[in-house]
Amino acid sequence: MKYLLTISYDGRRYCGYQVQKNGVSIQEMLCKAAEAVFGRPCPITGCSRTDSGVHALDFKATLETGDDSPRIPADKVAVAMNCHLPEDIAVQSSCVVPEGFHPRYDVKEKEYQYRIHNVPTRDPFLAGRAYHYPRKLDENEMNRAAEWLVGTHDFAAFMASGSDVTDTVRTIYSLGVVREGDMITVTVSGNGFLYNMVRILTGTLIAVSEGKLTAEDIPAVIASKDRSRAGITVPACGLYLTRVTYEKGDSDDGFREKE
Amino acid sequence: MKYLLTISYDGRRYCGYQVQKNGVSIQEMLCKAAEAVFGRPCPITGCSRTDSGVHALDFKATLETGDDSPRIPADKVAVAMNCHLPEDIAVQSSCVVPEGFHPRYDVKEKEYQYRIHNVPTRDPFLAGRAYHYPRKLDENEMNRAAEWLVGTHDFAAFMASGSDVTDTVRTIYSLGVVREGDMITVTVSGNGFLYNMVRILTGTLIAVSEGKLTAEDIPAVIASKDRSRAGITVPACGLYLTRVTYEKGDSDDGFREKE
Repeated sequence: MKYLLTISYDGRRYCGYQVQKNGVSIQEMLCKAAEAVFGRPCPITGCSRTDSGVHALDFKATLETGDDSPRIPADKVAVAMNCHLPEDIAVQSSCVVPEGFHPRYDVKEKEYQYRIHNVPTRDPFLAGRAYHYPRKLDENEMNRAAEWLVGTHDFAAFMASGSDVTDTVRTIYSLGVVREGDMITVTVSGNGFLYNMVRILTGTLIAVSEGKLTAEDIPAVIASKDRSRAGITVPACGLYLTRVTYEKGDSDDGFREKE
Repeated sequence: MKYLLTISYDGRRYCGYQVQKNGVSIQEMLCKAAEAVFGRPCPITGCSRTDSGVHALDFKATLETGDDSPRIPADKVAVAMNCHLPEDIAVQSSCVVPEGFHPRYDVKEKEYQYRIHNVPTRDPFLAGRAYHYPRKLDENEMNRAAEWLVGTHDFAAFMASGSDVTDTVRTIYSLGVVREGDMITVTVSGNGFLYNMVRILTGTLIAVSEGKLTAEDIPAVIASKDRSRAGITVPACGLYLTRVTYEKGDSDDGFREKE
């Protein structure tokens, strides 16, 4: 049986989603919980490899059980898993998916949000949950720059140096900046993202607000494919994976994720 | 010089406000920061002794410097202190108060909020910040019970057993329950609170929603002065000190705290 889990987590205490030698990962906690529920190790595959300190509101992962595993109704898997997970990770829902379903390869669209707390004095309740940026940002100027980034481009300039990905073309479906009081949220959706791409896109929008770049410089930054032309990589703490979509056109294949 | 600091903190990592042997306190962190700023130990006096795990949005404390301490403009004290405080504690503002001012004895009104996340599945981002209560609560019934608690009463039934306070009469100015989506907030204001009183008041309102008590039972619970007749002491994680007022009638004495 293959279950699709929708998971939310506060990434602060973890070395990221993926199992690593030097830290506790989200995946490791999920594997332990699944083994406690099903009485044997169960392969768990995630939709993404979020970095250390990055959060998720809508992470997707599959959990595969064997033929001899206890049969648990799909919607009860979430409840059972939560009994064995720490308080900063929770399975929000669970459903059955076809054997051939792959939570990473089958992704059609991913959405991230980057949260900037734009106020002189930091808020203790946002520590590790938003990037505290004390100087006033201009969300209108950031939105002007964002327009140039939407579309299909070679985003090599927006990838962490050292990444070994060779195809650096991605499509950004939408990129927008919204201010609500002191909180600025950058929301970006696309068919996939390069390593650190959302954090570098956000750093670049901040550079435009700060006057280090203009909105009209963006096409040249993209064309340069030069990491040093884009903005800084803003800290992981502000980044949230907010939506993962498996929709295929208009068909409803039984595991389509609705908002 | 005597400064009045307005402080917010996430209480999760601390043993409470007051310095204790078995844990790190908010007061200890404030004292260390003050010593780093002023180059010598400075007495710090808080408005309240919040418990382990309790949060504050508007904690007040005075910081006294000696005649030989550096003179720092009042509004810059907050900025200077924040450079030496951990990310889960922040001084939001600072001002000068008269020598005779006392941050605890001069309090006229205190407001607390208790936050209940009332939804079947817990939210990782509210871990340690709200009480997760999975069964649906009836905020209207809780408000009916709350009305009986407002006023001047002997609240002995709502004080943790073992407390050595002898005068257990307090005045509750207002007590209300508001639901916003899945979050229920109990807001209570009064001239002072007994040990664990807000948490026991909230536990009692929950007992009414659960049908273990009726709203009309409340006067008898108060009259009994019997701790066992009131509800449970709900966990510290949902409790926030949200407002401390030093207002004296209509006079504005220069350090009046405005909302």
